[in-house]
Amino acid sequence: MSRIAYVNGRYVPHAHAMVHVEDRGYQFADGVYEVCEVRDGKLVDERRHMERLQRSLSELRIAMPMATNSLRVVLREVVRQNLVGDGLVYVQVTRGVARRDHAFPTTPVKPALVVTARNVSRAKSDAQAEAGISVVTVPDNRWKRVDIKTVGLLPNVLARQTARDRGAREAWFVDREGFITEGASSNAWIVTAAGTLVTRSANSGILRGITRTVTLEAAGIAKLAVEERPFTVAEAMAAKEAFLTAATQIVMPVIEIDGKKIGDGRPGPVALALRARFHDKAEIGD
Amino acid sequence: MSRIAYVNGRYVPHAHAMVHVEDRGYQFADGVYEVCEVRDGKLVDERRHMERLQRSLSELRIAMPMATNSLRVVLREVVRQNLVGDGLVYVQVTRGVARRDHAFPTTPVKPALVVTARNVSRAKSDAQAEAGISVVTVPDNRWKRVDIKTVGLLPNVLARQTARDRGAREAWFVDREGFITEGASSNAWIVTAAGTLVTRSANSGILRGITRTVTLEAAGIAKLAVEERPFTVAEAMAAKEAFLTAATQIVMPVIEIDGKKIGDGRPGPVALALRARFHDKAEIGD
Repeated sequence: MSRIAYVNGRYVPHAHAMVHVEDRGYQFADGVYEVCEVRDGKLVDERRHMERLQRSLSELRIAMPMATNSLRVVLREVVRQNLVGDGLVYVQVTRGVARRDHAFPTTPVKPALVVTARNVSRAKSDAQAEAGISVVTVPDNRWKRVDIKTVGLLPNVLARQTARDRGAREAWFVDREGFITEGASSNAWIVTAAGTLVTRSANSGILRGITRTVTLEAAGIAKLAVEERPFTVAEAMAAKEAFLTAATQIVMPVIEIDGKKIGDGRPGPVALALRARFHDKAEIGD
Repeated sequence: MSRIAYVNGRYVPHAHAMVHVEDRGYQFADGVYEVCEVRDGKLVDERRHMERLQRSLSELRIAMPMATNSLRVVLREVVRQNLVGDGLVYVQVTRGVARRDHAFPTTPVKPALVVTARNVSRAKSDAQAEAGISVVTVPDNRWKRVDIKTVGLLPNVLARQTARDRGAREAWFVDREGFITEGASSNAWIVTAAGTLVTRSANSGILRGITRTVTLEAAGIAKLAVEERPFTVAEAMAAKEAFLTAATQIVMPVIEIDGKKIGDGRPGPVALALRARFHDKAEIGD
Protein backbone atom coordinates (compact mmCIF):
# COMPACT_ATOMS: atom_id res chain seq x y z
CA MET A 1 0.00 0.00 0.00
CA SER A 2 1.34 3.42 -0.86
CA ARG A 3 1.26 5.92 1.97
CA ILE A 4 -0.91 9.06 1.90
CA ALA A 5 -0.01 12.44 3.34
CA TYR A 6 -2.13 15.51 3.94
CA VAL A 7 -0.43 18.66 2.59
CA ASN A 8 -2.07 22.07 2.65
CA GLY A 9 -5.60 20.97 1.91
CA ARG A 10 -5.03 17.84 -0.13
CA TYR A 11 -4.56 14.13 0.50
CA VAL A 12 -1.69 13.11 -1.77
CA PRO A 13 0.51 10.03 -2.26
CA HIS A 14 3.41 10.26 0.17
CA ALA A 15 5.92 10.27 -2.69
CA HIS A 16 4.31 13.47 -4.00
CA ALA A 17 3.93 15.21 -0.64
CA MET A 18 5.73 18.46 -1.45
CA VAL A 19 6.06 21.93 0.03
CA HIS A 20 7.47 25.06 -1.53
CA VAL A 21 11.18 25.85 -1.12
CA GLU A 22 10.18 29.19 0.41
CA ASP A 23 7.98 27.57 3.04
CA ARG A 24 9.45 29.21 6.12
CA GLY A 25 9.74 25.82 7.75
CA TYR A 26 12.40 24.96 5.17
CA GLN A 27 14.37 28.19 5.20
CA PHE A 28 14.03 29.28 8.85
CA ALA A 29 12.76 26.32 10.93
CA ASP A 30 9.84 28.68 11.51
CA GLY A 31 7.34 26.03 12.53
CA VAL A 32 6.26 23.52 15.14
CA TYR A 33 5.11 19.92 15.27
CA GLU A 34 3.48 17.19 17.31
CA VAL A 35 3.81 13.40 17.25
CA CYS A 36 0.82 11.52 18.59
CA GLU A 37 0.80 7.81 19.36
CA VAL A 38 -1.78 5.69 17.52
CA ARG A 39 -2.89 2.51 19.28
CA ASP A 40 -5.41 0.08 17.83
CA GLY A 41 -6.17 2.78 15.27
CA LYS A 42 -7.00 5.35 17.95
CA LEU A 43 -5.16 8.54 18.87
CA VAL A 44 -3.61 8.63 22.32
CA ASP A 45 -3.76 11.88 24.33
CA GLU A 46 -4.84 13.78 21.25
CA ARG A 47 -6.49 16.55 23.28
CA ARG A 48 -3.24 17.35 25.08
CA HIS A 49 -1.25 17.25 21.83
CA MET A 50 -3.70 19.69 20.25
CA GLU A 51 -3.43 21.98 23.28
CA ARG A 52 0.36 21.93 23.14
CA LEU A 53 0.29 22.57 19.39
CA GLN A 54 -1.86 25.64 20.01
CA ARG A 55 0.50 26.84 22.73
CA SER A 56 3.59 26.38 20.51
CA LEU A 57 1.93 28.28 17.66
CA SER A 58 0.77 31.01 20.00
CA GLU A 59 4.32 31.52 21.34
CA LEU A 60 5.48 32.07 17.73
CA ARG A 61 2.43 34.16 16.78
CA ILE A 62 1.38 31.67 14.10
CA ALA A 63 -2.36 31.08 13.67
CA MET A 64 -3.83 27.59 13.88
CA PRO A 65 -4.09 26.41 10.23
CA MET A 66 -7.69 25.33 10.81
CA ALA A 67 -10.13 24.85 13.68
CA THR A 68 -9.03 22.17 16.14
CA ASN A 69 -12.05 20.03 15.36
CA SER A 70 -11.25 20.12 11.64
CA LEU A 71 -7.63 19.25 12.37
CA ARG A 72 -8.78 16.28 14.41
CA VAL A 73 -10.78 15.10 11.40
CA VAL A 74 -7.67 15.37 9.20
CA LEU A 75 -5.56 13.41 11.71
CA ARG A 76 -8.16 10.61 11.78
CA GLU A 77 -8.41 10.58 8.00
CA VAL A 78 -4.63 10.28 7.55
CA VAL A 79 -4.52 7.49 10.13
CA ARG A 80 -7.40 5.74 8.38
CA GLN A 81 -6.06 6.14 4.83
CA ASN A 82 -2.69 4.75 5.93
CA LEU A 83 -4.31 1.80 7.74
CA VAL A 84 -2.38 2.63 10.89
CA GLY A 85 -3.12 0.25 13.73
CA ASP A 86 -0.22 0.84 16.09
CA GLY A 87 2.02 3.70 15.09
CA LEU A 88 2.09 7.45 15.05
CA VAL A 89 0.60 10.48 13.39
CA TYR A 90 2.87 13.48 12.73
CA VAL A 91 1.56 17.07 12.40
CA GLN A 92 3.72 19.99 11.29
CA VAL A 93 2.59 23.60 11.06
CA THR A 94 4.82 26.37 9.70
CA ARG A 95 4.30 30.09 9.22
CA GLY A 96 3.70 29.49 5.51
CA VAL A 97 5.26 30.50 2.20
CA ALA A 98 6.69 33.99 1.73
CA ARG A 99 9.60 35.67 0.02
CA ARG A 100 12.66 35.08 2.19
CA ASP A 101 13.00 37.72 4.92
CA HIS A 102 13.71 36.94 8.57
CA ALA A 103 10.84 38.97 10.01
CA PHE A 104 7.28 37.68 9.77
CA PRO A 105 5.58 38.27 6.39
CA THR A 106 4.02 41.74 6.36
CA THR A 107 1.15 40.46 4.25
CA PRO A 108 -0.39 37.61 6.24
CA VAL A 109 0.08 34.20 4.64
CA LYS A 110 -1.75 30.98 5.37
CA PRO A 111 0.13 28.67 7.76
CA ALA A 112 1.30 25.46 6.10
CA LEU A 113 -0.03 22.15 7.42
CA VAL A 114 1.43 18.69 6.83
CA VAL A 115 0.13 15.48 8.38
CA THR A 116 1.67 12.03 7.92
CA ALA A 117 1.14 8.71 9.67
CA ARG A 118 2.76 5.33 9.74
CA ASN A 119 2.72 2.01 11.51
CA VAL A 120 5.31 1.23 14.19
CA SER A 121 5.69 -2.32 15.45
CA ARG A 122 4.32 -2.61 18.99
CA ALA A 123 6.04 -5.98 19.40
CA LYS A 124 9.39 -4.43 18.53
CA SER A 125 8.90 -1.59 21.00
CA ASP A 126 7.85 -4.05 23.72
CA ALA A 127 10.88 -6.23 23.02
CA GLN A 128 13.11 -3.16 23.34
CA ALA A 129 11.47 -2.29 26.65
CA GLU A 130 12.11 -5.82 27.93
CA ALA A 131 15.78 -5.53 26.97
CA GLY A 132 16.22 -1.90 28.06
CA ILE A 133 18.23 0.72 26.20
CA SER A 134 21.50 2.61 26.64
CA VAL A 135 21.83 6.39 26.71
CA VAL A 136 24.82 8.72 26.55
CA THR A 137 25.08 12.24 27.93
CA VAL A 138 26.00 15.30 25.85
CA PRO A 139 26.28 19.00 26.72
CA ASP A 140 22.97 20.82 26.29
CA ASN A 141 23.87 23.32 23.56
CA ARG A 142 20.31 24.15 22.50
CA TRP A 143 18.59 27.51 22.42
CA LYS A 144 16.70 28.85 25.42
CA ARG A 145 13.14 28.23 24.18
CA VAL A 146 13.08 24.43 24.24
CA ASP A 147 9.66 24.77 25.87
CA ILE A 148 8.34 25.36 22.33
CA LYS A 149 8.17 22.23 20.18
CA THR A 150 9.77 23.71 17.08
CA VAL A 151 11.24 21.95 14.05
CA GLY A 152 14.60 23.57 14.85
CA LEU A 153 15.91 20.15 15.84
CA LEU A 154 19.47 20.12 14.54
CA PRO A 155 21.02 20.01 18.05
CA ASN A 156 18.76 17.04 18.78
CA VAL A 157 19.77 15.41 15.49
CA LEU A 158 23.46 15.77 16.33
CA ALA A 159 22.92 14.51 19.89
CA ARG A 160 21.03 11.46 18.67
CA GLN A 161 23.74 10.75 16.11
CA THR A 162 26.36 10.97 18.89
CA ALA A 163 24.33 8.37 20.78
CA ARG A 164 24.34 6.08 17.77
CA ASP A 165 28.06 6.63 17.18
CA ARG A 166 28.61 5.47 20.77
CA GLY A 167 26.32 2.46 20.42
CA ALA A 168 23.41 3.95 22.38
CA ARG A 169 19.78 4.67 21.52
CA GLU A 170 19.25 8.10 23.01
CA ALA A 171 21.25 11.12 24.19
CA TRP A 172 20.44 12.99 27.38
CA PHE A 173 21.39 16.67 27.47
CA VAL A 174 23.31 18.00 30.47
CA ASP A 175 23.12 21.70 31.40
CA ARG A 176 25.95 23.98 32.53
CA GLU A 177 25.36 23.04 36.16
CA GLY A 178 25.71 19.33 35.44
CA PHE A 179 22.01 18.53 35.63
CA ILE A 180 20.29 16.37 33.03
CA THR A 181 17.65 18.39 31.20
CA GLU A 182 15.97 15.91 28.82
CA GLY A 183 16.66 13.56 25.95
CA ALA A 184 17.02 14.42 22.27
CA SER A 185 13.37 13.39 21.88
CA SER A 186 12.31 12.18 25.33
CA ASN A 187 12.06 13.16 28.99
CA ALA A 188 14.49 11.65 31.52
CA TRP A 189 13.59 9.91 34.79
CA ILE A 190 15.27 8.05 37.63
CA VAL A 191 14.15 6.03 40.63
CA THR A 192 16.38 6.76 43.63
CA ALA A 193 17.68 4.17 46.09
CA ALA A 194 14.85 5.28 48.41
CA GLY A 195 12.34 4.46 45.66
CA THR A 196 11.46 8.07 44.79
CA LEU A 197 10.61 8.85 41.18
CA VAL A 198 12.54 11.95 40.01
CA THR A 199 12.12 13.96 36.83
CA ARG A 200 13.03 17.54 36.04
CA SER A 201 10.33 20.17 36.51
CA ALA A 202 8.85 21.34 33.22
CA ASN A 203 9.34 24.95 34.32
CA SER A 204 12.91 25.21 33.03
CA GLY A 205 15.10 23.70 30.37
CA ILE A 206 12.74 21.14 28.91
CA LEU A 207 9.64 20.62 26.83
CA ARG A 208 6.55 19.70 28.84
CA GLY A 209 6.26 16.14 27.55
CA ILE A 210 2.75 14.77 27.32
CA THR A 211 3.85 11.21 28.04
CA ARG A 212 5.73 12.75 30.98
CA THR A 213 2.53 14.37 32.29
CA VAL A 214 0.52 11.17 31.96
CA THR A 215 3.31 9.16 33.60
CA LEU A 216 3.27 11.59 36.54
CA GLU A 217 -0.46 10.99 36.89
CA ALA A 218 0.01 7.23 36.67
CA ALA A 219 2.71 7.45 39.35
CA GLY A 220 0.35 9.42 41.59
CA ILE A 221 -2.34 6.77 41.27
CA ALA A 222 0.22 4.08 42.07
CA LYS A 223 1.09 6.13 45.19
CA LEU A 224 4.75 6.42 44.22
CA ALA A 225 6.75 9.23 45.85
CA VAL A 226 7.54 11.76 43.13
CA GLU A 227 9.92 14.71 43.06
CA GLU A 228 10.01 17.16 40.15
CA ARG A 229 13.55 18.51 40.39
CA PRO A 230 16.83 18.46 38.47
CA PHE A 231 19.20 15.52 38.94
CA THR A 232 22.85 15.12 37.99
CA VAL A 233 24.51 12.49 35.83
CA ALA A 234 26.18 11.08 38.98
CA GLU A 235 22.80 10.77 40.71
CA ALA A 236 21.38 9.03 37.64
CA MET A 237 24.29 6.59 37.58
CA ALA A 238 23.74 5.78 41.25
CA ALA A 239 19.97 5.39 40.79
CA LYS A 240 18.09 2.13 41.24
CA GLU A 241 16.38 2.63 37.89
CA ALA A 242 16.33 5.01 34.98
CA PHE A 243 13.91 5.37 32.11
CA LEU A 244 12.67 7.80 29.49
CA THR A 245 9.23 8.81 28.26
CA ALA A 246 8.14 9.83 24.76
CA ALA A 247 4.92 9.50 22.79
CA THR A 248 6.39 6.89 20.48
CA GLN A 249 8.31 5.00 23.19
CA ILE A 250 5.82 5.27 26.05
CA VAL A 251 7.94 4.36 29.11
CA MET A 252 11.30 2.94 28.05
CA PRO A 253 13.71 1.45 30.63
CA VAL A 254 17.30 2.73 30.51
CA ILE A 255 19.86 0.18 31.68
CA GLU A 256 23.08 2.02 30.91
CA ILE A 257 24.26 5.65 30.98
CA ASP A 258 27.62 6.49 29.38
CA GLY A 259 28.58 2.82 29.65
CA LYS A 260 27.76 2.59 33.38
CA LYS A 261 25.11 0.00 34.25
CA ILE A 262 22.11 1.33 36.20
CA GLY A 263 20.93 -0.77 39.16
CA ASP A 264 21.34 -4.42 38.29
CA GLY A 265 21.65 -3.58 34.60
CA ARG A 266 18.16 -4.75 33.77
CA PRO A 267 14.85 -2.89 33.20
CA GLY A 268 13.49 -1.86 36.61
CA PRO A 269 10.13 -2.85 38.07
CA VAL A 270 8.89 0.73 38.45
CA ALA A 271 9.54 1.54 34.78
CA LEU A 272 7.95 -1.70 33.61
CA ALA A 273 4.90 -1.18 35.83
CA LEU A 274 4.43 2.40 34.59
CA ARG A 275 4.76 1.19 31.01
CA ALA A 276 2.20 -1.58 31.56
CA ARG A 277 -0.18 0.86 33.23
CA PHE A 278 0.32 3.79 30.87
CA HIS A 279 -2.63 3.29 28.54
CA ASP A 280 -5.06 2.90 31.43
CA LYS A 281 -4.26 6.48 32.33
CA ALA A 282 -3.83 7.99 28.85
CA GLU A 283 -6.82 9.40 26.99
CA ILE A 284 -7.64 7.06 24.14
CA GLY A 285 -9.59 8.65 21.30
CA ASP A 286 -12.89 7.54 19.85
CA MET B 1 9.20 37.52 -16.08
CA SER B 2 8.52 34.45 -13.93
CA ARG B 3 11.35 33.46 -11.67
CA ILE B 4 13.28 30.20 -12.03
CA ALA B 5 14.69 28.06 -9.23
CA TYR B 6 17.10 25.16 -9.28
CA VAL B 7 15.78 22.24 -7.21
CA ASN B 8 17.56 18.90 -7.00
CA GLY B 9 18.79 18.74 -10.57
CA ARG B 10 16.14 20.71 -12.39
CA TYR B 11 15.49 24.33 -13.32
CA VAL B 12 11.81 24.91 -12.54
CA PRO B 13 9.44 27.88 -12.37
CA HIS B 14 9.72 29.41 -8.91
CA ALA B 15 6.04 28.76 -8.23
CA HIS B 16 6.69 25.03 -8.70
CA ALA B 17 9.92 24.86 -6.74
CA MET B 18 9.02 22.10 -4.30
CA VAL B 19 10.80 19.79 -1.88
CA HIS B 20 9.48 16.71 -0.14
CA VAL B 21 7.84 17.05 3.29
CA GLU B 22 10.39 14.56 4.63
CA ASP B 23 13.33 16.60 3.41
CA ARG B 24 15.29 16.83 6.66
CA GLY B 25 15.61 20.56 6.15
CA TYR B 26 11.85 20.83 6.69
CA GLN B 27 11.49 18.48 9.65
CA PHE B 28 14.78 19.03 11.49
CA ALA B 29 16.46 22.20 10.16
CA ASP B 30 19.16 19.72 9.15
CA GLY B 31 20.80 21.88 6.52
CA VAL B 32 22.87 24.95 5.77
CA TYR B 33 22.78 27.87 3.38
CA GLU B 34 24.69 30.77 1.83
CA VAL B 35 23.58 34.11 0.45
CA CYS B 36 25.92 35.64 -2.10
CA GLU B 37 25.67 39.19 -3.37
CA VAL B 38 25.24 39.66 -7.13
CA ARG B 39 26.49 42.94 -8.57
CA ASP B 40 26.24 43.84 -12.22
CA GLY B 41 25.33 40.20 -12.82
CA LYS B 42 28.51 38.94 -11.16
CA LEU B 43 28.89 36.96 -7.95
CA VAL B 44 30.71 38.74 -5.12
CA ASP B 45 33.13 36.74 -2.94
CA GLU B 46 31.78 33.49 -4.35
CA ARG B 47 34.97 31.57 -3.53
CA ARG B 48 34.70 32.41 0.17
CA HIS B 49 30.98 31.55 0.21
CA MET B 50 31.73 28.17 -1.36
CA GLU B 51 34.47 27.55 1.20
CA ARG B 52 32.16 28.41 4.07
CA LEU B 53 29.42 26.22 2.61
CA GLN B 54 31.85 23.32 2.53
CA ARG B 55 32.89 23.98 6.12
CA SER B 56 29.26 24.14 7.34
CA LEU B 57 28.44 20.88 5.57
CA SER B 58 31.57 19.24 6.88
CA GLU B 59 30.69 20.19 10.48
CA LEU B 60 27.34 18.42 10.00
CA ARG B 61 28.83 15.47 8.09
CA ILE B 62 26.77 16.27 4.99
CA ALA B 63 28.46 15.72 1.61
CA MET B 64 28.66 18.52 -0.95
CA PRO B 65 25.69 17.92 -3.30
CA MET B 66 27.96 18.27 -6.33
CA ALA B 67 31.51 19.36 -7.15
CA THR B 68 32.17 23.01 -6.32
CA ASN B 69 32.80 23.84 -9.97
CA SER B 70 29.47 22.36 -10.99
CA LEU B 71 27.73 24.24 -8.20
CA ARG B 72 29.31 27.46 -9.45
CA VAL B 73 27.83 26.74 -12.86
CA VAL B 74 24.38 26.28 -11.31
CA LEU B 75 24.68 29.55 -9.39
CA ARG B 76 25.57 31.40 -12.59
CA GLU B 77 22.75 29.76 -14.50
CA VAL B 78 20.16 30.70 -11.88
CA VAL B 79 21.46 34.28 -11.82
CA ARG B 80 21.35 34.38 -15.61
CA GLN B 81 17.89 32.82 -16.00
CA ASN B 82 16.47 35.29 -13.46
CA LEU B 83 18.13 38.26 -15.19
CA VAL B 84 19.68 39.33 -11.91
CA GLY B 85 21.79 42.46 -12.24
CA ASP B 86 22.09 43.64 -8.63
CA GLY B 87 20.67 41.23 -6.11
CA LEU B 88 21.46 37.96 -4.45
CA VAL B 89 21.73 34.24 -5.05
CA TYR B 90 20.60 31.87 -2.30
CA VAL B 91 21.93 28.32 -1.91
CA GLN B 92 20.51 25.78 0.52
CA VAL B 93 21.81 22.26 1.08
CA THR B 94 20.12 19.79 3.40
CA ARG B 95 20.89 16.22 4.39
CA GLY B 96 18.20 15.00 2.00
CA VAL B 97 14.95 13.06 2.16
CA ALA B 98 14.56 10.14 4.56
CA ARG B 99 11.92 8.62 6.81
CA ARG B 100 11.73 10.78 9.92
CA ASP B 101 14.28 9.72 12.54
CA HIS B 102 16.54 12.14 14.39
CA ALA B 103 19.80 10.32 13.68
CA PHE B 104 21.37 10.51 10.24
CA PRO B 105 19.84 8.15 7.64
CA THR B 106 21.52 4.76 7.91
CA THR B 107 21.23 4.29 4.16
CA PRO B 108 23.02 7.28 2.64
CA VAL B 109 20.72 9.68 0.80
CA LYS B 110 21.59 12.39 -1.69
CA PRO B 111 21.83 15.85 -0.14
CA ALA B 112 19.11 18.21 -1.34
CA LEU B 113 20.14 21.36 -3.22
CA VAL B 114 18.03 24.45 -3.83
CA VAL B 115 19.25 27.63 -5.54
CA THR B 116 17.20 30.78 -6.02
CA ALA B 117 18.10 34.32 -7.08
CA ARG B 118 16.43 37.68 -7.25
CA ASN B 119 17.06 41.33 -7.89
CA VAL B 120 17.48 43.76 -5.01
CA SER B 121 17.42 47.49 -5.67
CA ARG B 122 20.90 48.97 -5.29
CA ALA B 123 19.43 52.47 -5.18
CA LYS B 124 17.17 51.51 -2.30
CA SER B 125 20.06 50.00 -0.35
CA ASP B 126 22.23 53.07 -1.01
CA ALA B 127 19.41 55.37 0.11
CA GLN B 128 19.10 53.36 3.30
CA ALA B 129 22.83 53.64 3.90
CA GLU B 130 22.65 57.41 3.46
CA ALA B 131 19.84 57.59 6.02
CA GLY B 132 21.29 55.02 8.41
CA ILE B 133 19.29 52.38 10.28
CA SER B 134 18.18 51.68 13.83
CA VAL B 135 18.93 48.49 15.76
CA VAL B 136 17.61 47.08 19.02
CA THR B 137 19.37 44.67 21.38
CA VAL B 138 17.92 41.33 22.48
CA PRO B 139 19.29 38.53 24.69
CA ASP B 140 21.29 35.98 22.70
CA ASN B 141 19.21 32.84 23.25
CA ARG B 142 20.65 30.84 20.35
CA TRP B 143 22.36 27.47 20.41
CA LYS B 144 26.13 27.15 20.85
CA ARG B 145 27.04 26.34 17.25
CA VAL B 146 26.25 29.66 15.59
CA ASP B 147 29.59 29.27 13.79
CA ILE B 148 27.71 26.92 11.42
CA LYS B 149 25.42 28.70 8.97
CA THR B 150 22.39 26.43 9.47
CA VAL B 151 18.76 27.00 8.49
CA GLY B 152 17.83 26.72 12.17
CA LEU B 153 17.05 30.44 12.17
CA LEU B 154 13.97 30.71 14.36
CA PRO B 155 15.79 32.70 17.11
CA ASN B 156 16.98 35.07 14.39
CA VAL B 157 13.44 35.32 12.99
CA LEU B 158 12.05 36.22 16.42
CA ALA B 159 14.85 38.72 17.06
CA ARG B 160 14.29 40.41 13.71
CA GLN B 161 10.55 40.57 14.37
CA THR B 162 11.26 42.17 17.76
CA ALA B 163 13.29 44.77 15.91
CA ARG B 164 10.41 45.49 13.58
CA ASP B 165 7.93 45.62 16.45
CA ARG B 166 10.15 48.31 17.99
CA GLY B 167 10.51 50.26 14.78
CA ALA B 168 14.06 49.12 14.01
CA ARG B 169 15.67 47.29 11.07
CA GLU B 170 17.92 44.81 12.82
CA ALA B 171 18.39 43.15 16.22
CA TRP B 172 21.80 42.70 17.83
CA PHE B 173 22.17 39.75 20.19
CA VAL B 174 23.72 40.33 23.62
CA ASP B 175 25.40 37.46 25.48
CA ARG B 176 25.17 36.64 29.20
CA GLU B 177 28.15 38.86 29.95
CA GLY B 178 26.52 41.87 28.31
CA PHE B 179 28.63 41.79 25.14
CA ILE B 180 27.09 42.16 21.70
CA THR B 181 27.66 38.99 19.69
CA GLU B 182 26.18 39.74 16.25
CA GLY B 183 22.99 40.71 14.46
CA ALA B 184 20.11 38.45 13.47
CA SER B 185 21.67 38.34 10.00
CA SER B 186 24.70 40.62 10.19
CA ASN B 187 27.93 41.32 12.06
CA ALA B 188 28.16 44.28 14.46
CA TRP B 189 30.83 46.99 14.48
CA ILE B 190 31.64 50.22 16.26
CA VAL B 191 34.18 53.03 15.87
CA THR B 192 35.41 54.20 19.28
CA ALA B 193 35.99 57.82 20.29
CA ALA B 194 39.69 57.21 19.59
CA GLY B 195 38.80 56.13 16.04
CA THR B 196 39.46 52.42 16.51
CA LEU B 197 37.31 49.99 14.56
CA VAL B 198 36.01 47.23 16.87
CA THR B 199 34.22 44.01 15.99
CA ARG B 200 33.91 40.76 17.89
CA SER B 201 36.43 38.04 17.13
CA ALA B 202 34.99 35.25 14.99
CA ASN B 203 36.41 32.71 17.42
CA SER B 204 33.40 32.74 19.75
CA GLY B 205 29.71 33.40 19.62
CA ILE B 206 29.33 34.48 16.00
CA LEU B 207 29.38 33.30 12.42
CA ARG B 208 32.52 34.25 10.50
CA GLY B 209 30.85 36.72 8.18
CA ILE B 210 32.38 37.01 4.72
CA THR B 211 31.48 40.68 4.37
CA ARG B 212 33.05 41.05 7.84
CA THR B 213 36.29 39.45 6.61
CA VAL B 214 36.45 41.64 3.51
CA THR B 215 35.67 44.75 5.56
CA LEU B 216 38.55 43.88 7.91
CA GLU B 217 40.85 43.71 4.89
CA ALA B 218 39.52 46.98 3.54
CA ALA B 219 40.11 48.58 6.96
CA GLY B 220 43.68 47.30 6.96
CA ILE B 221 44.35 48.85 3.57
CA ALA B 222 42.87 52.12 4.77
CA LYS B 223 45.29 51.88 7.73
CA LEU B 224 42.49 52.04 10.30
CA ALA B 225 43.27 50.77 13.80
CA VAL B 226 41.28 47.57 14.28
CA GLU B 227 40.53 45.52 17.39
CA GLU B 228 38.79 42.16 17.21
CA ARG B 229 37.25 41.92 20.67
CA PRO B 230 33.83 41.89 22.35
CA PHE B 231 32.15 45.19 23.14
CA THR B 232 29.19 45.98 25.40
CA VAL B 233 25.93 47.74 24.59
CA ALA B 234 27.11 50.70 26.71
CA GLU B 235 30.34 50.93 24.70
CA ALA B 236 28.36 50.82 21.47
CA MET B 237 26.05 53.57 22.67
CA ALA B 238 29.07 55.73 23.55
CA ALA B 239 30.79 55.02 20.22
CA LYS B 240 31.48 57.59 17.54
CA GLU B 241 29.94 55.34 14.90
CA ALA B 242 28.25 51.98 14.59
CA PHE B 243 27.48 49.86 11.56
CA LEU B 244 26.73 46.34 10.46
CA THR B 245 27.98 44.13 7.64
CA ALA B 246 26.13 41.47 5.66
CA ALA B 247 26.37 40.16 2.10
CA THR B 248 23.10 41.78 1.10
CA GLN B 249 23.67 45.03 3.00
CA ILE B 250 27.41 45.45 2.46
CA VAL B 251 28.36 48.07 5.10
CA MET B 252 25.24 49.65 6.63
CA PRO B 253 25.52 52.61 9.05
CA VAL B 254 23.67 52.28 12.36
CA ILE B 255 22.51 55.60 13.79
CA GLU B 256 20.48 54.41 16.76
CA ILE B 257 20.68 51.54 19.27
CA ASP B 258 17.68 50.90 21.54
CA GLY B 259 16.49 54.43 20.83
CA LYS B 260 19.83 56.05 21.77
CA LYS B 261 21.45 58.09 18.98
CA ILE B 262 25.00 57.07 18.07
CA GLY B 263 27.52 59.89 17.58
CA ASP B 264 25.76 62.81 15.94
CA GLY B 265 22.89 60.54 14.87
CA ARG B 266 23.99 60.41 11.26
CA PRO B 267 25.89 57.78 9.23
CA GLY B 268 29.58 58.02 10.13
CA PRO B 269 32.43 58.73 7.73
CA VAL B 270 34.29 55.50 8.47
CA ALA B 271 31.22 53.37 7.69
CA LEU B 272 30.47 55.31 4.53
CA ALA B 273 34.08 55.10 3.36
CA LEU B 274 34.22 51.34 3.98
CA ARG B 275 30.96 50.94 2.10
CA ALA B 276 32.21 52.98 -0.85
CA ARG B 277 35.47 51.03 -0.90
CA PHE B 278 34.01 47.57 -0.30
CA HIS B 279 33.78 46.32 -3.87
CA ASP B 280 37.35 47.33 -4.65
CA LYS B 281 38.42 44.79 -2.06
CA ALA B 282 35.79 42.06 -2.64
CA GLU B 283 36.40 39.34 -5.20
CA ILE B 284 34.11 39.97 -8.14
CA GLY B 285 33.38 36.91 -10.27
CA ASP B 286 33.89 36.45 -13.97
